[in-house]
Amino acid sequence: MFPKNCWYVACTPDEFADKPLGRQICGERIVFYRGAAGKVAAVEDFCPHRGAPLSLGYVEDGLLVCGYHGLKMDCDGKTAAMPGQRVQGFPCIRSYPVVERHGFVWVWTGVAELADPADIPELEWANNPEWAYGGGLYHINCDYRLMIDNLMDLTHETYVHSSSIGQKEIDEAPVHTTTEGDTVVTSRFMDNVTAPPFWQAALRANHLADDVPVDRWQICRFSPPSHVMIEVGVAHAGNGGYEASPNLKAGSIVVDFITPETETSIWYFWGMARHFKPDDAALTDQIREGQGQIFSEDLEMLERQQRNLLAYPERKLLKLNIDTGGVQSRRILDRILKKERQLIETTNL
Amino acid sequence: MFPKNCWYVACTPDEFADKPLGRQICGERIVFYRGAAGKVAAVEDFCPHRGAPLSLGYVEDGLLVCGYHGLKMDCDGKTAAMPGQRVQGFPCIRSYPVVERHGFVWVWTGVAELADPADIPELEWANNPEWAYGGGLYHINCDYRLMIDNLMDLTHETYVHSSSIGQKEIDEAPVHTTTEGDTVVTSRFMDNVTAPPFWQAALRANHLADDVPVDRWQICRFSPPSHVMIEVGVAHAGNGGYEASPNLKAGSIVVDFITPETETSIWYFWGMARHFKPDDAALTDQIREGQGQIFSEDLEMLERQQRNLLAYPERKLLKLNIDTGGVQSRRILDRILKKERQLIETTNL
Amino acid sequence: MFPKNCWYVACTPDEFADKPLGRQICGERIVFYRGAAGKVAAVEDFCPHRGAPLSLGYVEDGLLVCGYHGLKMDCDGKTAAMPGQRVQGFPCIRSYPVVERHGFVWVWTGVAELADPADIPELEWANNPEWAYGGGLYHINCDYRLMIDNLMDLTHETYVHSSSIGQKEIDEAPVHTTTEGDTVVTSRFMDNVTAPPFWQAALRANHLADDVPVDRWQICRFSPPSHVMIEVGVAHAGNGGYEASPNLKAGSIVVDFITPETETSIWYFWGMARHFKPDDAALTDQIREGQGQIFSEDLEMLERQQRNLLAYPERKLLKLNIDTGGVQSRRILDRILKKERQLIETTNL
Repeated sequence: MFPKNCWYVACTPDEFADKPLGRQICGERIVFYRGAAGKVAAVEDFCPHRGAPLSLGYVEDGLLVCGYHGLKMDCDGKTAAMPGQRVQGFPCIRSYPVVERHGFVWVWTGVAELADPADIPELEWANNPEWAYGGGLYHINCDYRLMIDNLMDLTHETYVHSSSIGQKEIDEAPVHTTTEGDTVVTSRFMDNVTAPPFWQAALRANHLADDVPVDRWQICRFSPPSHVMIEVGVAHAGNGGYEASPNLKAGSIVVDFITPETETSIWYFWGMARHFKPDDAALTDQIREGQGQIFSEDLEMLERQQRNLLAYPERKLLKLNIDTGGVQSRRILDRILKKERQLIETTNL
Repeated sequence: MFPKNCWYVACTPDEFADKPLGRQICGERIVFYRGAAGKVAAVEDFCPHRGAPLSLGYVEDGLLVCGYHGLKMDCDGKTAAMPGQRVQGFPCIRSYPVVERHGFVWVWTGVAELADPADIPELEWANNPEWAYGGGLYHINCDYRLMIDNLMDLTHETYVHSSSIGQKEIDEAPVHTTTEGDTVVTSRFMDNVTAPPFWQAALRANHLADDVPVDRWQICRFSPPSHVMIEVGVAHAGNGGYEASPNLKAGSIVVDFITPETETSIWYFWGMARHFKPDDAALTDQIREGQGQIFSEDLEMLERQQRNLLAYPERKLLKLNIDTGGVQSRRILDRILKKERQLIETTNL
Repeated sequence: MFPKNCWYVACTPDEFADKPLGRQICGERIVFYRGAAGKVAAVEDFCPHRGAPLSLGYVEDGLLVCGYHGLKMDCDGKTAAMPGQRVQGFPCIRSYPVVERHGFVWVWTGVAELADPADIPELEWANNPEWAYGGGLYHINCDYRLMIDNLMDLTHETYVHSSSIGQKEIDEAPVHTTTEGDTVVTSRFMDNVTAPPFWQAALRANHLADDVPVDRWQICRFSPPSHVMIEVGVAHAGNGGYEASPNLKAGSIVVDFITPETETSIWYFWGMARHFKPDDAALTDQIREGQGQIFSEDLEMLERQQRNLLAYPERKLLKLNIDTGGVQSRRILDRILKKERQLIETTNL
């Protein structure tokens, strides 16, 4: 139950730098590789000759060569050549619209005619040299919507991440959720609190005292199909918080791209974009490592939650005020899914 | 096909000493923890908020705190509190009658109104300081009745445990089985035999010669749902065997509590209670280690027997004289299961 | 979809030298052991007493003793004895025609009355002291026909085994396929090429120069149900190639016996028979190790091809000229399978 007529993050370019990458996205087995003129290509991971996975092959002169019997596939899913064979009549395999942008590879698994690269979100932090980005990838066995719920309700930080970014005040601060079009924003402001360990380190990295009260903020923005960007930060208390002048605060954007693999598994691209010290590669590594550790704490919870939900499919879950972000996001997804079904029923697409 | 209106051993208290214990019993996902006033509690391992397993949480002031978003569960399955929420209207989860007794935690997964702690068996060895007990737990992928069969027919010792407690005479001695009410007793007496290694060591521990002929006995007692207590021992030959005076024999009770996890998997609590040297903790450890080693020899046999039976579901097994103990035990279980079905059909329970 | 009225290689005698061997062949769970007078026996791996796998037992006086309760099984599937029991009325289990020949154990899982040991293929290399043989066994999760395809189209060597036996000329040389009765022969001759590493070593082992052009040949012979013998070799170029005099060439037979375990898994017995230096045991070991390494390169390809085909069951594969060997072999198998179905419909067998 995931939208298909939309752009998902499929991978990062380093993942197919040496050899083709086979990855299942939205139930489709796809191979990603760098084809003619260095352009990213994505076709079915299924050789039309005998069904071998093309991802076990290699790239030669911009063509994907099957590692079993040497069939050469072009980026449109048409066989370009095969030793000793006339290939004009070979059946095509499916190719997927694919775009390399913002440091990621974006794929469209729906109706190709509807794919418009202009719909890929703008990400200032990805292209402005004043920002730095570091991130990673986790495979998690859960419905992609459980991950959206997780990110749109940060009260879980108090419990799941109690030793790093969690603190009791998150739980206690009221949360405010608004929906505008297809975007859901859920925010929480905690004034005059102690900075938890992660943010103390960030204050120090900004040459700010780390032992004074701070105003802390978390502003989560969901946009379909499953992107959640979270502005997070702290400012020395009493200076306007989120609106404080740059020299009094430390902040960043938690970046979350959630890509369904199957109905109950995801590729979770997580990262952090920061607006300070963009050239400090060691700091990028350090933040990546810390964030990777913290975000790994969610895995067991999400996977066992998923198993519980599969074991008790008839149970209705609660929708509390803290869940409003996730509930509103799911409502938007339901609307998009309904549109997709109507499209299928009323057109040839 | 296991009775539900009965007490099963669920775990031992040390298993949830540090954190809640999630365990499936009779197909139910249950979390065990020590709640208010140190009393053991057992509720569904399913948070009513978003379905997270409560066993990933922790205990605070006698309440079970969900490790995802902080919901606080009481021992009756009612939500006691949640940060920032009114919880009166929250749906209940199921709680299970649970009793800590004899060093074990006993749980009732059937109709709660029928649960009477007086039905938990009396176990003299568990409470009398003249006895010592040591044991362990194995998870085995087999129907609980295959384990009952195993324990009610000890001829398998000759083959499965040939290097420790098995000996040819077990096979050759006639077996005698009686049923009285819901108890099945199957016994075997081997007079004037050589003690196998395990019993030679036990004789030495009792300051008895280990190189003289012995009279050996095995008296297996099944009681529902799946408890098998086995009196075992040896006496210097010709002194009355089982009835010999205490200074001429070494004996103990093999303790077996078999708890269904699913239709084809069990939690097997095994142990040994002995009536000599109760304060010798090193001896307890030594026996536990030896018994654990011996009992582990049954695992592969039981799991592969189960796989064979699943692969050939239409085959009828033989019911020989040596199988009478198991056959009679299954007959009692069938009667109990029939009663449970009638109870469901004729009442609201 | 595999023929059952035929002889398959089940195992090699060393596999049950110490204890019985349990192995699934054509969906049947079978135990192999050396019974009375050292004769190989094969019966169902299912004790008629309680369903335990007999392969966990041991052999005593030519009888297979169940490792659970000591039932003694003879090679015809009849219980010979059991301690304290009259066994005349015990139900039989199935026994399988089985023959030890050519260094292998051959089993017949179809109608026993049709089993004729004369149908086991003659293998000169297995019995002539001028030949040496070395081989091994791989378990692969794929339909046995994918392995036949693999071996009847050696163009894959260019891609899968590029660093050892593959070379571009394989791809480029035309392939010639003929069918005669139930045998398919597909051959390829490459004249005046450079010997790849494996064949350079073979030339040296034959005291021949390894740095001169060679004529290379590959002659694959399929015979049902799934035997593929491949004559391979090189001769110094211009001396008649395959027909060159023995002192100018190096050659051998690649031996492949493919035995279905289930519809999508096989036991793959691979090896090499050579007609030179038959007494050089170190050379046998060296070739086995090299071949084992090379043949292991096919495993991932075959298993992932199988998964692709299961994921896209409706797709038709291409049948190119290079695939003719496999296509013709499958046609013969289809004919045999049709006959087996007719046999079942029209007789009591």
